[in-house]
Amino acid sequence: MNTQSPIIEERMVDALIIGGGPGGMSAAITAAQVWPGRKILLIRREDEPVVPCGIPYIFGTLKGVDHDLLSNAPFRALGGEILVDSVLSIDREARTARTASGVLVHWQRLVLATGTEPYLPPIPGVTRPGVFAIRKDYEHLEYLFEELIPGVQRLAVVGGGFIGVEFADEVHKGGVAVTVVEQLPHLLLRNFDQEVSVLVEKALRARGVDIHTGSGVTALEGEGENGPVQSVRLANGEQVEADGVLVAIGDRRNVVLAEALDLTMARGGGIWVDAFQRTREDPAIFAVGDCAFKQDVLLRRSAHSLLASTAAAEGRTAGMNLFGLRNERYNAGTIAIYASMIGDLAFGCAGMTAAAARAEGLSVVVGRIEVPDHHPPSMPGTRMMTSALIFSRSGLLLGGQIVGGATTAEVLNAIGIAIQARLSVHDLVSFQFGSHPRLTAPAHPIALCALDALHQLSTHG
Amino acid sequence: MNTQSPIIEERMVDALIIGGGPGGMSAAITAAQVWPGRKILLIRREDEPVVPCGIPYIFGTLKGVDHDLLSNAPFRALGGEILVDSVLSIDREARTARTASGVLVHWQRLVLATGTEPYLPPIPGVTRPGVFAIRKDYEHLEYLFEELIPGVQRLAVVGGGFIGVEFADEVHKGGVAVTVVEQLPHLLLRNFDQEVSVLVEKALRARGVDIHTGSGVTALEGEGENGPVQSVRLANGEQVEADGVLVAIGDRRNVVLAEALDLTMARGGGIWVDAFQRTREDPAIFAVGDCAFKQDVLLRRSAHSLLASTAAAEGRTAGMNLFGLRNERYNAGTIAIYASMIGDLAFGCAGMTAAAARAEGLSVVVGRIEVPDHHPPSMPGTRMMTSALIFSRSGLLLGGQIVGGATTAEVLNAIGIAIQARLSVHDLVSFQFGSHPRLTAPAHPIALCALDALHQLSTHG
Repeated sequence: MNTQSPIIEERMVDALIIGGGPGGMSAAITAAQVWPGRKILLIRREDEPVVPCGIPYIFGTLKGVDHDLLSNAPFRALGGEILVDSVLSIDREARTARTASGVLVHWQRLVLATGTEPYLPPIPGVTRPGVFAIRKDYEHLEYLFEELIPGVQRLAVVGGGFIGVEFADEVHKGGVAVTVVEQLPHLLLRNFDQEVSVLVEKALRARGVDIHTGSGVTALEGEGENGPVQSVRLANGEQVEADGVLVAIGDRRNVVLAEALDLTMARGGGIWVDAFQRTREDPAIFAVGDCAFKQDVLLRRSAHSLLASTAAAEGRTAGMNLFGLRNERYNAGTIAIYASMIGDLAFGCAGMTAAAARAEGLSVVVGRIEVPDHHPPSMPGTRMMTSALIFSRSGLLLGGQIVGGATTAEVLNAIGIAIQARLSVHDLVSFQFGSHPRLTAPAHPIALCALDALHQLSTHG
Repeated sequence: MNTQSPIIEERMVDALIIGGGPGGMSAAITAAQVWPGRKILLIRREDEPVVPCGIPYIFGTLKGVDHDLLSNAPFRALGGEILVDSVLSIDREARTARTASGVLVHWQRLVLATGTEPYLPPIPGVTRPGVFAIRKDYEHLEYLFEELIPGVQRLAVVGGGFIGVEFADEVHKGGVAVTVVEQLPHLLLRNFDQEVSVLVEKALRARGVDIHTGSGVTALEGEGENGPVQSVRLANGEQVEADGVLVAIGDRRNVVLAEALDLTMARGGGIWVDAFQRTREDPAIFAVGDCAFKQDVLLRRSAHSLLASTAAAEGRTAGMNLFGLRNERYNAGTIAIYASMIGDLAFGCAGMTAAAARAEGLSVVVGRIEVPDHHPPSMPGTRMMTSALIFSRSGLLLGGQIVGGATTAEVLNAIGIAIQARLSVHDLVSFQFGSHPRLTAPAHPIALCALDALHQLSTHG
């Protein structure tokens, strides 16, 4: 590990953060804010990284990578420093890191925020020209936006999760024929119960996106061994024509540096971290974001959702506790809270689906309500909001799903607070919720779903 | 009390609910849902009551009372019955109520939801033609909409609370010159700290509404003793010309029936109720909504905000517990959660202001953040959201205020959940919040305000 380029500069910092995505940036900003006077250095490969959640929108709404850049201003305003470089090796005993350009950084605290790489499964034909995955770096996205996508007439998106669905809709907006291929019986089933998936499929189809569900991909076909992709072959024998194929079936954690440090990896995946995001071997080394292990807030099992918002929360925890366990604040566990939008149909989820809870062996009740999102419904801009809350038989809130308009994601964040605070159907049915004709439903869907669930629990319990 | 019109009909019901506003309707719907098979009768003066929060919008956005009616369908779908009538007297021993049209109703449970009447203070000139308050009944509103307002050139709104502000903006939209007069130094000071009030004043003024603050009204002037109003005289000597004057300075609880029943009144105002909305004298008689006493969720003192949403929550509590304390669910206390909108500027509050908390003797820290409500900010429709969370020195969340766009009210509902669940700055800074480019800020204002407050507590604590 010492056969690298010669050291041309040495730097002393209090904290070194490796990786500038939502986890690393959040750790950096929080550390700079909570521990003023400490020298915080962030090393990442790019000066202006992209906003990860915004990537699908580069290809439609935003029309270009330059409109999806993360601002460095908040971190720099707090005195933080950014070095555009990449860390090649770390010496845990010496508390140093060496970069590709020959900088030796002496650190007191180290935060690994090395993220993920997209996963390309070993499907026959996956290396054909025209087959691609989404990486979160500027040059790759610029290439997709400027060169690859403009040359595609028919795009197949393999994987009907959130990224696949958003990408399909955005690229389709630009005039490309798009087909989504999903192995499970419906899109988005990892996050939603079937009724919501069906609504999203309907909305996508209404916009002209083609959808094939219930059959996996067996090969990406084209001429010869290495000719450009021409079609996607499904397990049921069907063939989907495509001169471009996006593989959006997930990511692999980037833990190269952590493995070189001999840090313990969690059995469920990722760098093992405690509730303060500290690694097992060294309380001076933290890991946050996609590269770190996540434990489900309710089940204590490994959580497999890798969300920017979760990474940001982990970054806050690490940043706050970097130089001592300030305010005893720890990560109580991971919860997936997600929302998206197709046209003007927003949909989102928090916590567990009813199907997932049942698969865990939990007995659940689902409280449901459909209400207008303004009131009276004659108010301009009113649309219906369909809500479901999932409770255990003992009344604990496990999850929620909403289909509605502009307020959908914030109602889900309210549900997320309620899950993380371990509130019950009894709490939620009695809580007060503000209401206003131009801004909300006449009565709040959280209270009404709780009431519906309580009624079911009372009568069938 | 027995010298009324003769009884022409007798009816036996399990529960009689008197009053069909948000409290009574919510109690009725909840009772019908949670206690199927029980006969629930709602008596109110009108077949199609107005949606109270929608009243200001009748005069601008909705253009008519008929567009602001509350639907009876949900209650009727659950088997509930509505009688358009008014209750003249109640016999507690006999468990009966007599109506104006001669119906004698035998009840097992009684819910008083008799609401408020607007308060007209004894200002000289308050009885002049052209001076009015807002009552929540159809005919009165129809008269205002069809006759009074169309004849007004210059409207003065006395009282710069929510009703005054909303009414001013809506009437002004219709081409009427409007001046708001408020005794306190700024509008909305009962709900907001000054910085938010100033933003709202700026927005109202930009739309052409005139505002006079810091001086109360001493007289409503006109020709002679009883001539139509021509101007509003302020304590500082100023005169505001007006041929119409809306007095919007608050309401008085309507407790006539409760007083006739000799029910205990709370010292803080309203019918005394326990945590299940039961009256002191009789566990078979409940009171909900504006007519019932409210206790602040944090202070245990009387709460003076009379909101439809609070009434609805009380109605749920009463409805659930009407025939036995089902699920032991009680009203833990009242919290004011409110939002409104002037043009496309939404603003709202939950819980205590910093000023109110300090006036109580609490030492507070205010965490603040300003973030775009979409991300990256280049996403279409992005606008800034200014947020403040108020915490006690021990870290308990006391209140929040948001100025932003379409999601403002639901972010406040999330803050409301957090206050009612008694969450702390330590909880909120570590909680996860979902994020999506088209729907939310890049990092959630609740987490960021908590982080800012925590930093202040750490450094100055």
